[in-house]
Amino acid sequence: MSVEPIERAREAYAYPLLIKHLLHTPLAIAPDREIVYRDHVRLTYRQLRDRIGQLASGLAKMGVKPGDVVAVMDWDSHRYLECFFAAPMMGAVLQTVNIRLTHEQILYTLNHARPKILLVNAEFLPIVEALADRIESVEKYVLLSDEPHAAPSAVPFDCEYEILLLSGEADFAFPDFDENARATTFYTTGTTGLPKGVSFSHRQLVLHTLAETAALALAPAQGRLHRDDVYMPMTPMFHVHAWGVPYAATMAGLKQVYPGRYTPESLMRLKQREGVTFSHCVPTILHMILSHPDSAAYDLSNWKVIIGGSALPTGLAEAALARGIDVFAGYGMSETCPILTLAHVKPELLKDAADQGVGLRVKTGLPIPLVDLRIVDSDMKDAPHDGKATGEIVARAPWLAQAYLNNPEASNALWAGGWLHTNDIANIDAQGYVQVTDRLKDVIKTGGEWISSLEIEDLISQHPLVSEVAVIGVKDPKWGERPKALVVAKCGAAVDAEAIRAFLAGFAERGLISKYGVPQEIELVEALIKTSVGKINKRALRELFGG
Amino acid sequence: MSVEPIERAREAYAYPLLIKHLLHTPLAIAPDREIVYRDHVRLTYRQLRDRIGQLASGLAKMGVKPGDVVAVMDWDSHRYLECFFAAPMMGAVLQTVNIRLTHEQILYTLNHARPKILLVNAEFLPIVEALADRIESVEKYVLLSDEPHAAPSAVPFDCEYEILLLSGEADFAFPDFDENARATTFYTTGTTGLPKGVSFSHRQLVLHTLAETAALALAPAQGRLHRDDVYMPMTPMFHVHAWGVPYAATMAGLKQVYPGRYTPESLMRLKQREGVTFSHCVPTILHMILSHPDSAAYDLSNWKVIIGGSALPTGLAEAALARGIDVFAGYGMSETCPILTLAHVKPELLKDAADQGVGLRVKTGLPIPLVDLRIVDSDMKDAPHDGKATGEIVARAPWLAQAYLNNPEASNALWAGGWLHTNDIANIDAQGYVQVTDRLKDVIKTGGEWISSLEIEDLISQHPLVSEVAVIGVKDPKWGERPKALVVAKCGAAVDAEAIRAFLAGFAERGLISKYGVPQEIELVEALIKTSVGKINKRALRELFGG
Repeated sequence: MSVEPIERAREAYAYPLLIKHLLHTPLAIAPDREIVYRDHVRLTYRQLRDRIGQLASGLAKMGVKPGDVVAVMDWDSHRYLECFFAAPMMGAVLQTVNIRLTHEQILYTLNHARPKILLVNAEFLPIVEALADRIESVEKYVLLSDEPHAAPSAVPFDCEYEILLLSGEADFAFPDFDENARATTFYTTGTTGLPKGVSFSHRQLVLHTLAETAALALAPAQGRLHRDDVYMPMTPMFHVHAWGVPYAATMAGLKQVYPGRYTPESLMRLKQREGVTFSHCVPTILHMILSHPDSAAYDLSNWKVIIGGSALPTGLAEAALARGIDVFAGYGMSETCPILTLAHVKPELLKDAADQGVGLRVKTGLPIPLVDLRIVDSDMKDAPHDGKATGEIVARAPWLAQAYLNNPEASNALWAGGWLHTNDIANIDAQGYVQVTDRLKDVIKTGGEWISSLEIEDLISQHPLVSEVAVIGVKDPKWGERPKALVVAKCGAAVDAEAIRAFLAGFAERGLISKYGVPQEIELVEALIKTSVGKINKRALRELFGG
Repeated sequence: MSVEPIERAREAYAYPLLIKHLLHTPLAIAPDREIVYRDHVRLTYRQLRDRIGQLASGLAKMGVKPGDVVAVMDWDSHRYLECFFAAPMMGAVLQTVNIRLTHEQILYTLNHARPKILLVNAEFLPIVEALADRIESVEKYVLLSDEPHAAPSAVPFDCEYEILLLSGEADFAFPDFDENARATTFYTTGTTGLPKGVSFSHRQLVLHTLAETAALALAPAQGRLHRDDVYMPMTPMFHVHAWGVPYAATMAGLKQVYPGRYTPESLMRLKQREGVTFSHCVPTILHMILSHPDSAAYDLSNWKVIIGGSALPTGLAEAALARGIDVFAGYGMSETCPILTLAHVKPELLKDAADQGVGLRVKTGLPIPLVDLRIVDSDMKDAPHDGKATGEIVARAPWLAQAYLNNPEASNALWAGGWLHTNDIANIDAQGYVQVTDRLKDVIKTGGEWISSLEIEDLISQHPLVSEVAVIGVKDPKWGERPKALVVAKCGAAVDAEAIRAFLAGFAERGLISKYGVPQEIELVEALIKTSVGKINKRALRELFGG
């Protein structure tokens, strides 16, 4: 359809949606707010802006040109935040390297994205030393170190990060260019096959930032982001830009705290010392914090924490609420930049003033602005929004990965029929809450009936002696598949399979789950196999226990 | 600069920023929330969506094609909201006709924008009857009426609005098209020359909606918008889309209340009955509400009200706060879609818990996300942010009018040097608050010194017996110009020029204003001349009193 575009005056500024434009507001309204890195660095936004100019200027002097890839291997730091802005703002592409992958996978992602410059935290020197001979594209290495004097290394470093900044000019002129330019790239860590690269454009990141901010800030009370919040990421910055929250926190001019490598102690210490009020993490990190022996010594209250990456188990949510943590789920994936939904509580659904709405907080959530989310069958027909009927979540939003890098087959499957396929099975209730019931590939089919492994896991997680749980389908000659539960007990707890089966049977008797949902096999294990980003690796568990 | 755009899968949805995409969220998360029109209509968002489809379908059957202009003359109504969506969503252009202009000006704007269809509220039939012979482009007329049976009219109506909707299908398929397509058009009401047309694209309106929502929702407490607010416009929908708030309120899924023609009684009654918590208006409307004889009979507390269009006088802000109204200023103009700044209070600047920050609320405000706002001299050099040095406000944002319609000369002046020129003189303080001190053309030059008429007005407004005030420059043989104050006393109040001069002299003695700022002439008048949108018309006052 052809329509007339608006007229433009000769010199009218058309305002491309570029990442540099996110910096206007913090500099205008909160120039002296701080960005804190561990115990080492405190910067104001004015200084941050100067350092972003210096970094880009220094990189340009090292030969970085528009379109070049700049790769970073660092823990969460002010340096990483500077790279989030400087590299895209100069027209380069930021590659956030997932340092939790195997060495061979890291090599694969580097040789696939082909960075010209690699910025490496001193802690990852052993990896880079081991791979250096086979890294094909990197021309120069920059050392990131918290120490003034770096240890000798076999990596041929061109310079150290702070020296690079000293070589650059703060007033580096960031040009305008096409808002559809690639800004960032990173690799998804599926449980099968080679890592797949995704890229996001300036336009996509700016729009994700605006919509995520609006969604979080619009909450009536629970889970609300505002200008006086203090932000600390607990999902790594290499993982989908720490859910894009560093961009949102910067645009809003919040105080920000970057914790370096995550340990439960350091996170709790920074939370308390810096007055952190807003974070996000996978369930595993929250679990580590709450189950840490020193946990009780810290005040964890007044802390809004979005949980994503995996479903938020009810038991974990209750444990967090008991500590005064305002915990709630969010949903998305690498391909979705990532936020699609947030599980804000609607106040009118609470029973009384004491009701914390845990049942709503653990939902997958409500779509954020501009997200067009459907649950559909294999013919793309919509399932009713009755809280029962399930279908695959497909979505459209302005920030969804438009392709996997150099992988047309997977790209076309991702976007079959013009909708991004999440491979997640969900229902939607009359209030609009989405509930993921399973990954398409994790659904358990028993005697013709579909069982949600996540639902069974959530119920088992509510047993007071259970620490973690995974439910997988195992082969069964009679039923095709049967659910099997792998349970980690709380430290020192005496819990046995029979106790858990009896606990579950109670739910089945009350009709909350089908009796086929009560696993025949319940096995107590020491730990569950996790992926590089801390999610339970069901594929590996199925291989190990699938029978 | 040339950079590589992101790859796209064959079927990837590129997601143009179209107004139709604002409807996903309310339908997903608040489908049963209500849109209320006076005492007449209550709709849910589901019904609103159906009616938007029916309206577009009906208009298409009447011959409206992409690019055609659809003009509306209505008070604030659910019908207007439906037009805000349906016309742009079908690729047409919505013209919001300013019904407060003179008949000849209305005729000029219609013949300039050239609508094919004109939707007319029955109350405006006399205007249209008087002009019909000379309206050049309109092919069909649609009657908007709150009554089931319309009075006979000389206007050749094609049909009535509700009948038009009945003829249309709710599932009308809204196409995708270029996000830079014109969505809306209307005319600025300057005090000189012919009205000038501006247009906004789908992209601009979506981005204004996102940034306005984020800015309002991010407030720590004062002036905060959230999902449980109840919205009622008190700036007409023909005036810069009621500041874009109907789009923001819809995207957020708020309950909305449309009051029809504004009267103080009806606004207060709807506020109380429907639990309205969020509005916006010019100072005149707030003044009318607070000074209405029945005002005290209504509970006006728990009401957030943005004041724009003119500066918010301190005296008026104090009177509103005394009634429990959370009042604060916003700033922008027709050419800026309109929001550039909002005067949210930063909690850290309050003295104590009792401090309501009135001095911050009346400021012009803090720039909202993506707004790049500068105060510059005539060489485009930036003035320091010290709260004193003044310059012209120039701005860039993704939603600024890119031109005046068919007026290249004015368009090029608007965008001289690549920045939108507001013609407003302002300072910016160290906390980032912008303060407009005058219109470029309203500045008073006395003895080589520049006097801010707004500053003197604000001080006079604080006198307990003053209702309204305007300060203008009048010719003076010795000083070039001298300030003259025109004062409206509160109902029945005995105040004279000497009392006001003495009140002002107190501020001059304390060094708050220069002694040249105390007007020699202070004249008590019955009323002040206003423009069609309720602003004080200084040009007319200068003509009348300029000597």
